Amino acid sequence: MSDLEVIALSPEQEQLRYTFGGGEPLLRVQQGTVVELTTEDCFGGRVRSAEDLPSQVCEFPYLNPVTGPIHVEGAEPGDTLAVHLVEITPARDWAVSATFPHFGALTATHNTAMLHEPLEEVVWVYEVDRKRGTCLFRPRRGGPEVELPLDPMHGTIGVAPAGGEVFASITPGAHGGNMDTPEMRAGTTAYFRVNVPGGQLSLGDGHCRQGEGEVCGTAVEASMRTVVVVDLIKGGGPAWPRIESDEYLMSTGSTRPLEDAYRVSQHDLVTWAAQLTGWDSLDAYQLVSQAGLAPAGNVVDTNYTMVAKLAKKYLGSGAVVADGAHDRLRETAATYLSQR
Amino acid sequence: MSDLEVIALSPEQEQLRYTFGGGEPLLRVQQGTVVELTTEDCFGGRVRSAEDLPSQVCEFPYLNPVTGPIHVEGAEPGDTLAVHLVEITPARDWAVSATFPHFGALTATHNTAMLHEPLEEVVWVYEVDRKRGTCLFRPRRGGPEVELPLDPMHGTIGVAPAGGEVFASITPGAHGGNMDTPEMRAGTTAYFRVNVPGGQLSLGDGHCRQGEGEVCGTAVEASMRTVVVVDLIKGGGPAWPRIESDEYLMSTGSTRPLEDAYRVSQHDLVTWAAQLTGWDSLDAYQLVSQAGLAPAGNVVDTNYTMVAKLAKKYLGSGAVVADGAHDRLRETAATYLSQR
Amino acid sequence: MSDLEVIALSPEQEQLRYTFGGGEPLLRVQQGTVVELTTEDCFGGRVRSAEDLPSQVCEFPYLNPVTGPIHVEGAEPGDTLAVHLVEITPARDWAVSATFPHFGALTATHNTAMLHEPLEEVVWVYEVDRKRGTCLFRPRRGGPEVELPLDPMHGTIGVAPAGGEVFASITPGAHGGNMDTPEMRAGTTAYFRVNVPGGQLSLGDGHCRQGEGEVCGTAVEASMRTVVVVDLIKGGGPAWPRIESDEYLMSTGSTRPLEDAYRVSQHDLVTWAAQLTGWDSLDAYQLVSQAGLAPAGNVVDTNYTMVAKLAKKYLGSGAVVADGAHDRLRETAATYLSQR
Amino acid sequence: MSDLEVIALSPEQEQLRYTFGGGEPLLRVQQGTVVELTTEDCFGGRVRSAEDLPSQVCEFPYLNPVTGPIHVEGAEPGDTLAVHLVEITPARDWAVSATFPHFGALTATHNTAMLHEPLEEVVWVYEVDRKRGTCLFRPRRGGPEVELPLDPMHGTIGVAPAGGEVFASITPGAHGGNMDTPEMRAGTTAYFRVNVPGGQLSLGDGHCRQGEGEVCGTAVEASMRTVVVVDLIKGGGPAWPRIESDEYLMSTGSTRPLEDAYRVSQHDLVTWAAQLTGWDSLDAYQLVSQAGLAPAGNVVDTNYTMVAKLAKKYLGSGAVVADGAHDRLRETAATYLSQR
Repeated sequence: MSDLEVIALSPEQEQLRYTFGGGEPLLRVQQGTVVELTTEDCFGGRVRSAEDLPSQVCEFPYLNPVTGPIHVEGAEPGDTLAVHLVEITPARDWAVSATFPHFGALTATHNTAMLHEPLEEVVWVYEVDRKRGTCLFRPRRGGPEVELPLDPMHGTIGVAPAGGEVFASITPGAHGGNMDTPEMRAGTTAYFRVNVPGGQLSLGDGHCRQGEGEVCGTAVEASMRTVVVVDLIKGGGPAWPRIESDEYLMSTGSTRPLEDAYRVSQHDLVTWAAQLTGWDSLDAYQLVSQAGLAPAGNVVDTNYTMVAKLAKKYLGSGAVVADGAHDRLRETAATYLSQR
Repeated sequence: MSDLEVIALSPEQEQLRYTFGGGEPLLRVQQGTVVELTTEDCFGGRVRSAEDLPSQVCEFPYLNPVTGPIHVEGAEPGDTLAVHLVEITPARDWAVSATFPHFGALTATHNTAMLHEPLEEVVWVYEVDRKRGTCLFRPRRGGPEVELPLDPMHGTIGVAPAGGEVFASITPGAHGGNMDTPEMRAGTTAYFRVNVPGGQLSLGDGHCRQGEGEVCGTAVEASMRTVVVVDLIKGGGPAWPRIESDEYLMSTGSTRPLEDAYRVSQHDLVTWAAQLTGWDSLDAYQLVSQAGLAPAGNVVDTNYTMVAKLAKKYLGSGAVVADGAHDRLRETAATYLSQR
Repeated sequence: MSDLEVIALSPEQEQLRYTFGGGEPLLRVQQGTVVELTTEDCFGGRVRSAEDLPSQVCEFPYLNPVTGPIHVEGAEPGDTLAVHLVEITPARDWAVSATFPHFGALTATHNTAMLHEPLEEVVWVYEVDRKRGTCLFRPRRGGPEVELPLDPMHGTIGVAPAGGEVFASITPGAHGGNMDTPEMRAGTTAYFRVNVPGGQLSLGDGHCRQGEGEVCGTAVEASMRTVVVVDLIKGGGPAWPRIESDEYLMSTGSTRPLEDAYRVSQHDLVTWAAQLTGWDSLDAYQLVSQAGLAPAGNVVDTNYTMVAKLAKKYLGSGAVVADGAHDRLRETAATYLSQR
Repeated sequence: MSDLEVIALSPEQEQLRYTFGGGEPLLRVQQGTVVELTTEDCFGGRVRSAEDLPSQVCEFPYLNPVTGPIHVEGAEPGDTLAVHLVEITPARDWAVSATFPHFGALTATHNTAMLHEPLEEVVWVYEVDRKRGTCLFRPRRGGPEVELPLDPMHGTIGVAPAGGEVFASITPGAHGGNMDTPEMRAGTTAYFRVNVPGGQLSLGDGHCRQGEGEVCGTAVEASMRTVVVVDLIKGGGPAWPRIESDEYLMSTGSTRPLEDAYRVSQHDLVTWAAQLTGWDSLDAYQLVSQAGLAPAGNVVDTNYTMVAKLAKKYLGSGAVVADGAHDRLRETAATYLSQR
């Protein structure tokens, strides 16, 4: 496929961004372009050993850096930006996780404000074995070690928000952002509504793997080498980010309380299923009630994220998303991988 | 296995119960007994066609009947009641689902009170094919029909609450009750803390299958023929119901808002994993953050239910729950099934 | 007024109750009866000094005792029980408050589960000066003392729940119960829907005063000498408890999350105002939006309580609640007080 | 007081702003300056009759315009910006309110997503009588009219957020913004933490009056003539906006769910009271539990706002806020008013 355009994007430390919205694009691409990029970990690479406490070595607001924004030529408000994640590979042979003062689901936070002292700040360093596809959990105070399978994903991916807003990269919302769902893995296509010209795609916060909910507040945090293909569908921009894999359609909702995140994601999945099949919305409500899945994304960030999942096989052959963008992007990815 | 005691329990209509707590036991058994029982569906069997609107044919509080309570001899407050679900089989060749006025996650309810008129009340009748293991979704207003795999479960199972409280069977809580999680399927063992002498186990609300969250408020509701084995472990009663399958440990939390249900379930899983492995609680917090799952149970009942799941393989061979009750009960179940 | 029936009710320790619902009535009265009763404090009178830590001297579930139930002759499901609080007087010259492990709004709790150790358990003993109408706050670790005005109220008041449920006395809900709103003071009339024959009124949990929300979990807890008049209006039972004072109409909502308690209370006030005035519900929604008040009741109990208040003067002279029960009860109270 | 600097600020339509953060200052002032400014109503003045439906005459994101930002010379991150509201006067003899599709507390919204059609969009026009100090509610569909007292306030007031974020003016948060609390009336001083050089104060969204919670989503919306004095205290910037009146100290919290907004506001009030008096934080927790008030601000915006109030008389004479800024600003205001 001689016309496959491949561009490398590896920002310097001072080129990293910490918001969605605002600032000039770091790169401009045509739709269909493959971008080989690198992302730094959520600590900006500053936490490298158990002695590097995040609260000491990191500096607010220089947390959770993202690579981008990438301006997609021709993207206009209301369009759909389709981002296919071709490959996500840990860039180093180690990764880290930590408790962070007043951050996490089982601790008092700045919003769930309490009179408790913070939980102890502890760092875990994971050995990453890319060949065997594992990362090694070493408890800090004894007990069994656990070898966990790698399942790399991006916690943070999204576009510039609407209405001139600028959000910290740690905030998830209708623009995407720090949704922290393990579903954002290689092989999937994420759909975002374009809010500003060019869409302004950014991503970061790579995780070697993450549990649903990210309960302690951080995953197995790693710098990543990631390959994406960006595509553009005119119009049809979804109100909230959606994800398509070979097997599933997924809607996201990022807000508080968690039941509202659930409502947003299920409402989007129900109306999406109705639109794809021709079902009345109450019929789609019924089918999703029996066949839908509802895993937590995160329950720790400034908004919480729920994912609503439905197996594509239940929607019939007539249900085609975004003009078949996912299949098309899968082919582009296959071509790219075979040529590399 | 000549000493396997098997008892049948098939309550008459007027013997059905509508609460957890209160009332005399319907049956008394020794631990280790196999009980072959029947349960009526959540509508009391009164919704049989699309014309049988629940709000017209059902009468509050005679909703969500349960079979029981079963008094387990020797069970004392603080003990652990282990209930192994051997088999759950739809009793009829049809099942029903419905929207119910002011009930469900995408509608105003009595608690999420709003000025909207209720959504339309609609009934769906499913054909159940037990041989093929399917149930058939027929949209009421056109569009593709969908054949869904049977995955039978009990929405409601639990014991008498502590402190003399009596809860409607539609309420989930620390006593179990209407948790409505699809994880409550055959092959699993549920653990409940005993709060009153005999424990007083009841169950009902069979579902041919259910999506996570049960978004419209009802699943594929069916009368069931169910086989359980009840076991008793002295002491060790968990604060919230737990579930064990061959692969997973699961903790439940049933409260509001949904993030508190998430917190309860994750907190229980973290402290449980710490206790089973000898990890410090922060180490267990870390491992669960990377390896745990967090599917919604229900987001429609008087309390919402979240489930926290962890693969047993990550806990090492030393992690044995309740003296190995699950494996023991699996063997009892195998013996029973082979003798039947 | 020769026909005023006055009955005294002063339960012994072993006659105290700990639930709403269940059990036999402690007293049976005709409507219009004045009941002079006593209530014990929420600790059962066992916390008498700074050394009496509640977690050590109190025993679950023997917390928050109530006096009752009082069976009101003729009360049938659907009726309205009107309870006028004539007088609430601290019975002793001291009162207590405390932090209690895992209870309160600024601490991890059993439902908002976290990995923190509990906050320190501390008891405060207040001097109560009934003549001057004050209670004295003495900080335990220095700083200014504060003399606070007495504003006595009952945290817990309600009737037996519907559907055969029995709730711990610490739980507020549609049946009333532990709403913990400072609005439940002398001079007001509370309206409850009757759910079982006789209504089964109970009350307790007297507070010398309480801040809105009861943020630490306990108020200035005191045994009380309380006088109530009970009245019965056939039909018209409100879905949630209502309160009427000389100046205000108030609706309550007790559920979680707190915005749902807000929704319930506001929805009830809006529909109530519409019914009293003849306004369309959207017009009532508008008026309440501009003239309503919304103080927190409690944000610490098993359900949270919000109050929706509207000045009666905004509803016009045609707006009469429950056939003028409040004015009638005020007169009965005046007669009683003048005769005493 | 010959050195009182008074500046007028009356932005043109195209000078109105719709965000906090971003953009150049509209005015630069020295601390101590009196600013006489005008604000447009939340609909940009486009809703002028019952036929002007907001969803038709307004255009997203051009909603809720603010006047500003005002750059206060010398204000540096971490400082305290004190804004005294000298006077708030409706600029016209009419004001409006409306239901807006999918906005309000008793309706499905974009976040509390449901399958209901929106409530009907209705506009109410109020007659404003500045001399008599009233505004007249006219129900659209019959029933009594109600004359309500004017109690003018600003729903929206705040500074530029930290971390380079830019928030829509309809969003309340740690920077202030659209808190929609009736406490923001003339005679009070609001304190904000400065996040960027100059602080960048903006305000708008004047209300002739507002109920607590603003349940339908809009108040009695009016263009205002407002006089403020801005002051600067080096350091001491509060984490969340605070308000001081002659009688009360008030803390705000703006987040979701509503109990977290309550927690934030109460936590701030407790720690503030401890700092002002020398009480231990548990002693302050106790005092606030008995003497604090907790009215809702808004339960309709993108974050919900709760206010925590404490009468200053309970803190003793030693409790002085921000070097006595409120008293000083009251004097400046008096001087200004006497000279005008």
